[in-house]
Amino acid sequence: MSGNTLGTLFCVTNFGESHGPAIGCVIDGCPPGMELSEADIQADLDRRRPGTSRHVTQRNEPDAVEILSGVYEGKTTGTPIALLIRNTDQRSKDYGNIAQSFRPGHADYAYWHKYGLRDPRGGGRSSARLTAPTVAAGAVAKKWLAEKYGTRFRACMTQLGELPIPFENWEHVPHNPFFAPVADVQAYEDYMDALRKSGDSCGARIRVQATSVPVGLGEPLYDKLDADIAHVMMGLNAVKGVEIGAGFASVAQRGTTHGDSLTPTGFASNNAGGVLGGISTGQDIEVSLAIKPTSSIISPRESIDIHGQSTEVITKGRHDPCVGIRAAPIAEALLALVIMDHALRHRAQCGDVVQAVAPIPAVRLG
Amino acid sequence: MSGNTLGTLFCVTNFGESHGPAIGCVIDGCPPGMELSEADIQADLDRRRPGTSRHVTQRNEPDAVEILSGVYEGKTTGTPIALLIRNTDQRSKDYGNIAQSFRPGHADYAYWHKYGLRDPRGGGRSSARLTAPTVAAGAVAKKWLAEKYGTRFRACMTQLGELPIPFENWEHVPHNPFFAPVADVQAYEDYMDALRKSGDSCGARIRVQATSVPVGLGEPLYDKLDADIAHVMMGLNAVKGVEIGAGFASVAQRGTTHGDSLTPTGFASNNAGGVLGGISTGQDIEVSLAIKPTSSIISPRESIDIHGQSTEVITKGRHDPCVGIRAAPIAEALLALVIMDHALRHRAQCGDVVQAVAPIPAVRLG
Amino acid sequence: MSGNTLGTLFCVTNFGESHGPAIGCVIDGCPPGMELSEADIQADLDRRRPGTSRHVTQRNEPDAVEILSGVYEGKTTGTPIALLIRNTDQRSKDYGNIAQSFRPGHADYAYWHKYGLRDPRGGGRSSARLTAPTVAAGAVAKKWLAEKYGTRFRACMTQLGELPIPFENWEHVPHNPFFAPVADVQAYEDYMDALRKSGDSCGARIRVQATSVPVGLGEPLYDKLDADIAHVMMGLNAVKGVEIGAGFASVAQRGTTHGDSLTPTGFASNNAGGVLGGISTGQDIEVSLAIKPTSSIISPRESIDIHGQSTEVITKGRHDPCVGIRAAPIAEALLALVIMDHALRHRAQCGDVVQAVAPIPAVRLG
Amino acid sequence: MSGNTLGTLFCVTNFGESHGPAIGCVIDGCPPGMELSEADIQADLDRRRPGTSRHVTQRNEPDAVEILSGVYEGKTTGTPIALLIRNTDQRSKDYGNIAQSFRPGHADYAYWHKYGLRDPRGGGRSSARLTAPTVAAGAVAKKWLAEKYGTRFRACMTQLGELPIPFENWEHVPHNPFFAPVADVQAYEDYMDALRKSGDSCGARIRVQATSVPVGLGEPLYDKLDADIAHVMMGLNAVKGVEIGAGFASVAQRGTTHGDSLTPTGFASNNAGGVLGGISTGQDIEVSLAIKPTSSIISPRESIDIHGQSTEVITKGRHDPCVGIRAAPIAEALLALVIMDHALRHRAQCGDVVQAVAPIPAVRLG
Repeated sequence: MSGNTLGTLFCVTNFGESHGPAIGCVIDGCPPGMELSEADIQADLDRRRPGTSRHVTQRNEPDAVEILSGVYEGKTTGTPIALLIRNTDQRSKDYGNIAQSFRPGHADYAYWHKYGLRDPRGGGRSSARLTAPTVAAGAVAKKWLAEKYGTRFRACMTQLGELPIPFENWEHVPHNPFFAPVADVQAYEDYMDALRKSGDSCGARIRVQATSVPVGLGEPLYDKLDADIAHVMMGLNAVKGVEIGAGFASVAQRGTTHGDSLTPTGFASNNAGGVLGGISTGQDIEVSLAIKPTSSIISPRESIDIHGQSTEVITKGRHDPCVGIRAAPIAEALLALVIMDHALRHRAQCGDVVQAVAPIPAVRLG
Repeated sequence: MSGNTLGTLFCVTNFGESHGPAIGCVIDGCPPGMELSEADIQADLDRRRPGTSRHVTQRNEPDAVEILSGVYEGKTTGTPIALLIRNTDQRSKDYGNIAQSFRPGHADYAYWHKYGLRDPRGGGRSSARLTAPTVAAGAVAKKWLAEKYGTRFRACMTQLGELPIPFENWEHVPHNPFFAPVADVQAYEDYMDALRKSGDSCGARIRVQATSVPVGLGEPLYDKLDADIAHVMMGLNAVKGVEIGAGFASVAQRGTTHGDSLTPTGFASNNAGGVLGGISTGQDIEVSLAIKPTSSIISPRESIDIHGQSTEVITKGRHDPCVGIRAAPIAEALLALVIMDHALRHRAQCGDVVQAVAPIPAVRLG
Repeated sequence: MSGNTLGTLFCVTNFGESHGPAIGCVIDGCPPGMELSEADIQADLDRRRPGTSRHVTQRNEPDAVEILSGVYEGKTTGTPIALLIRNTDQRSKDYGNIAQSFRPGHADYAYWHKYGLRDPRGGGRSSARLTAPTVAAGAVAKKWLAEKYGTRFRACMTQLGELPIPFENWEHVPHNPFFAPVADVQAYEDYMDALRKSGDSCGARIRVQATSVPVGLGEPLYDKLDADIAHVMMGLNAVKGVEIGAGFASVAQRGTTHGDSLTPTGFASNNAGGVLGGISTGQDIEVSLAIKPTSSIISPRESIDIHGQSTEVITKGRHDPCVGIRAAPIAEALLALVIMDHALRHRAQCGDVVQAVAPIPAVRLG
Repeated sequence: MSGNTLGTLFCVTNFGESHGPAIGCVIDGCPPGMELSEADIQADLDRRRPGTSRHVTQRNEPDAVEILSGVYEGKTTGTPIALLIRNTDQRSKDYGNIAQSFRPGHADYAYWHKYGLRDPRGGGRSSARLTAPTVAAGAVAKKWLAEKYGTRFRACMTQLGELPIPFENWEHVPHNPFFAPVADVQAYEDYMDALRKSGDSCGARIRVQATSVPVGLGEPLYDKLDADIAHVMMGLNAVKGVEIGAGFASVAQRGTTHGDSLTPTGFASNNAGGVLGGISTGQDIEVSLAIKPTSSIISPRESIDIHGQSTEVITKGRHDPCVGIRAAPIAEALLALVIMDHALRHRAQCGDVVQAVAPIPAVRLG
């Protein structure tokens, strides 16, 4: 398996390149009988779409999704759901100047060595554009989980470059271009404007959360729920770190502090991030991601060409100066796909899953 | 699949419980013709073994491995290698008092809800004892990778509780009970003695490294090398965070800093941690883990019993006050299993892999 | 996994319905660097295409394939190859009269019970139309195997209803509408004309052969080469029996007859059909299939409706009176996909495969 | 994957060699809470065991199974069930004379070419002895299916060499050494005695049946129920042909005959063998197998040695002159494993399965 399929029971097979004719995916294993239309999927695609603010790539892609199969008379049939998104705004000429050399921090060096060739148009297969089909598939998973268990997914930015973003309220997230949980984002607007002007890029930290997750999801020994979450999150372009619950802070915690006390009305804290022994506890799943700065920048960088000779690389074209900005809806989709897969795996072995244990106290990280 | 198999081509299927008659694994997909004996495996098992210092559990297990199949006249045959380790020092009575209640931070709550029952003897299947077969399988992978590519694995502790451990030299690691890369470990001895006396536990941070890794390993889109590394590492008992290369520090880096420059003699830095676009670059693979404090502690904790009633839990028995101490050889094994699997996947699709790109400059993290 | 992906390393994920907007597949795992164009695939699709003689369905589908991804500058890149075939000649109204009842011998009864709904348009997902993407994927496998090992695939009809078709020569196969290895097909033309007039359908027997197959392909214990061949062949619509080599005739053979003698110049016979112990021997792979008569016939049949009430069913629409007629190119494709997958599996574990053992004597079945 | 794991959700990983220290398997995915003991498994192992009549190999193996894991207080826990069978009656010296040459019709030629070596002791991994762990795993599946759905499995011999065995009654099967459904087996006793005396071997035909199979099992497109049945059956040692329902007889049937009429009280016939469109219909599953004559015979055969030189081979040692005789319980186990896997797959995607449609008329093949 060449790694383009995600999931064991709710399987998403992704295809396409940034500058090819189309991208898309095939979802295999969706339960039959769920109402599904393009509109259900388009909403999340629009949240991820480029060109929506001056802080992201100006490539203009409507990312309109077409359902090719698996839905009959408005309902899923249980057969593969093929989703197609045509590429419409490729400008391959922008990439001509980097076809013979390698961008520092970019996948093109590794692709060249692995396959003996590479598609330099927009990064080809390594482009973050390929997260669009993942988001589309995630929308299907979200809908099923919401209808079946009331599970919800949300994500926000908690740090932009060196600026921490305090958590005020989830309500602010949809109202600013940064997916920031704060009312006033002027500081981040200014930061990004200065960054763009400098020709550089920056990293970001993203928090992802799932609520009303059924208890009992996750397969020990190796396919633990948190292991599979780490897999999808680290596999997202530019991610260099993943935390569950207290994450790296747990290193300096004592056992008497870290272990979340249980009470007759629920857990007293959530250092576990909703997972114990690799299995969901019914608490909120809490994940945090470190996203590195974009490698495609206009500032000149020292590098080599395909013949191993020293050269200088400048990446023109339309790139996100902070890929973390658009990562929130993608991270939600990835978390939904993992939970969906484990929901099906659970009912295969253990029968239908139990609803989230109630009441779960509102103790949350950050 | 219930999650007890790791890998797609070099497949390890793990079985057993902490206090059952035996634990073990079946390795399927090992190339034929490699010399292999129990001694090749025992060395790593001995590094992970309990009872080797006063800072780890005093359970006395020789962890002697028996090869049941897959080796003929001292060589692997290409058929499944079954490895068996008999349990010899179970004391199930130690666990009687916790069979009816849940330990805060422990898997038993989740197992109970998932399966409708649990094996309370030593945590049953959720016990860290089940890492022994993983270490055994990892030893087989290490041997093949060393012979074929010269790949080497090592790990050390970089933080114990709130005490950071500076990096002095890899040579110190085998000479102290903490896998610490320092000459003088008195501070850590004292720290652990005080911790044990207090009846509490602490976390740790572990660094894992692979050198001479062939370039080109890793399968985009979803089964990237770093994604699969994150999967196995987060799946290790008690791990709450995983970083590749610069990890969470990359959030505050600029693109001009983070992206490792390429020069005719190699990369100028290793913020990437040896992976670009999910594919190995030939640089050292660098991984860092956050390990939470042990949940099984002697200090009384607030909890509930299986009927949902309030209770107090004290965990007697023999437990590691810092599970991170024995994590180093396990983390090495997990990294070896991932790289082995991707080496086979690579040669399936692309033919035999290229040796590590040379020369690789000695730039390393930390 | 819902069963729409074939193969473990050369993976084909099939999607679409007979009367939806499109059908297609995603091939994951194709080695990089092979020249590939739509023309390479179209040739086999044209051999399978409906409407090419009066003996097959008169549905007029050009089955024009579009490569959506995985090919750059005329060469495979090692990333997923998505193939799209638009449906152009659906006439859903033809099926209105059977939406409320079940055709004897047809999948619609089983689909109804499995999914709680069904797509009655042309059989939806159960239609033989879904073999088109399989044929397209098989063409890619055939090309790689031919270039790498010189492996070739061919199939012919050996029985039509109760009429055995003697084997004269492979050269005749492309020159008649039955894929029959004989020069004179008048008897079969007459037979089919009479059958159509009677409103009935008939079965067929198909022989499939691969030549110049490398020795050593196949994974014991469970994924033997012949086991995987039986899997794909029995999974082909309407197939009720599969034989390898001597097949059912071997029941009455003695060991002294059945076991193919080995001589310094090759095997003396091929009762094994090219497989011993589940592993290819370098001899020709020989497979035989039993294909049942089409269930969609115009003759009235006793049946029940979806409420369990007695009814009579007549299937109008455009159907193949003998689905076996178009089965030859599909069976070739299926055999190619199995051998391709095992070629990649073999080189993953054992390194690159050995060429077919030469000389292979020309002893062939029937 | 090297092919030693069967199933996608109820996964059986098989290990061991005929003359190694032990054979066994790991079952992953068994639902928790089912009562299980060694006795539940031993019964089927005893039916398959060698040495039970003069017509089978005289190797004396008790085949005593030990449960190493996955069962706690007499119930399955949902974690891997490891089963171990020690080999006790190996006589490796019997095989010394064939280590340097290849037996016609035997796997050793293919193993040699695949792996570059082979284990000549009793055929090593290719030995029919490795069906014992499969039978053990099948016993677990049978128990779960019987308790959950009332599904039952049985198999009998329908032809021995050139002697057809008429079907009288299933009740006779356990009362003769041939698993023959007839009261008087004198003819078969005589046939086998003469065969043994002649130093030759013969084939057999086996019928396998599952009753009370839930409707809706099977995953189109590729993992159809009949496809997966064909996979396991063709993968059984010595099998050269597989039929479902009417099998090869369907070639000469007309559609008006083959398609089983539906009536308000059930199907009027069972040419389909219980599967339509790859999905179970609730009718009995009917399978037929062709088993070739044993290749290990005492009569001298023309062959080559490992240097390609002409030689003569005589196989001493203890072999079954008709491996089909012990195939009945193995075929039952294989069918049970496939149905078990699909039962779990079905409830993953579609929720819990429906009971077998009743009443199913008693129309049965042959």
